[in-house]
Amino acid sequence: MGRWKPDARGRLEQAALDLYGERGFEKTTVAEIAARAGVTERTYFRHFADKREVLFGGSGELRDMLTGAVADAPASTPPLEATADALETISAVFRGNLDRTRRRQAIINANPELREREVIKMAAFATALAETLRQRGVPDPAAALTAEAGIAIFKIAFERWIAAPGEKELPEFIRESLNELKAVTAAA
Amino acid sequence: MGRWKPDARGRLEQAALDLYGERGFEKTTVAEIAARAGVTERTYFRHFADKREVLFGGSGELRDMLTGAVADAPASTPPLEATADALETISAVFRGNLDRTRRRQAIINANPELREREVIKMAAFATALAETLRQRGVPDPAAALTAEAGIAIFKIAFERWIAAPGEKELPEFIRESLNELKAVTAAA
Repeated sequence: MGRWKPDARGRLEQAALDLYGERGFEKTTVAEIAARAGVTERTYFRHFADKREVLFGGSGELRDMLTGAVADAPASTPPLEATADALETISAVFRGNLDRTRRRQAIINANPELREREVIKMAAFATALAETLRQRGVPDPAAALTAEAGIAIFKIAFERWIAAPGEKELPEFIRESLNELKAVTAAA
Repeated sequence: MGRWKPDARGRLEQAALDLYGERGFEKTTVAEIAARAGVTERTYFRHFADKREVLFGGSGELRDMLTGAVADAPASTPPLEATADALETISAVFRGNLDRTRRRQAIINANPELREREVIKMAAFATALAETLRQRGVPDPAAALTAEAGIAIFKIAFERWIAAPGEKELPEFIRESLNELKAVTAAA
């Protein structure tokens, strides 16, 4: 189970990842996940609202880490710089977790419902980030644009990191994506 | 019915907009929409997969207009410039339609399911746009970042246009959002 704590929630996440990988998301039931994790279905639903949420269990913490890091940046740091720094900070969560992250992403990519859920999670990140930037005194539309740009940078860096295992670490891809966005906007 | 053609599809869209506005999205049934439009439920489902889709009927055409305009831009036009020009071109669809567009947006904003559907539609626009940019020879990650930036610009310009009726036209908000994104990235 690697880095995962052997609590019910962690065991459910691990069991879901294994079963979705072995049988596919569609063919796996909550009852099977609960059985593999050694808990009841009722316990499953205490932790996760449905069959999809078990794959997105850490996203609330990740969002709070991201907005927390932006809120804590020195007041003089420009908004997109503070955002990129915060994205690098939260990347630490994925360090050493490439294999697990790739397995999870392959499951998500194979299923339209899961891809939709991921899109919605990312949009919620952008909304939370824009709100944090407003609280730092960044006016709109700069706050909303910075948040959308930051999430786009993360999304694309993350895809590239997953696609090129071992080549570079995630923070390097984030910095590269930021630089590429700077080049693209400067040319327009 | 304003600009809307009195065909079954157009009548269904108009009836849904009216009923969702009067009674709320949740409390309206497909049977009621069909009855108001003077068609059968079967006809409704020939045009729209579910109760949500009737609000997003034009999105396929809008996506094709957007990618078509990017594909037709002179080869020398930088990718984000071609994208912003294309966004201004498709804005013509909304010209003179502010009232109807505001009513539709109020319905979407009031319902989490509809907001999710909209987020997913916008993500599909970004995916299609990135593919069009790749076909123009733009490499990744520039293609993906330009597409995400373009859709963010449109989304934020659209929100501002809806929130400030009559102040400026949508293309002006698009140009402003582009300039703001340039300022935000240049400062990072």
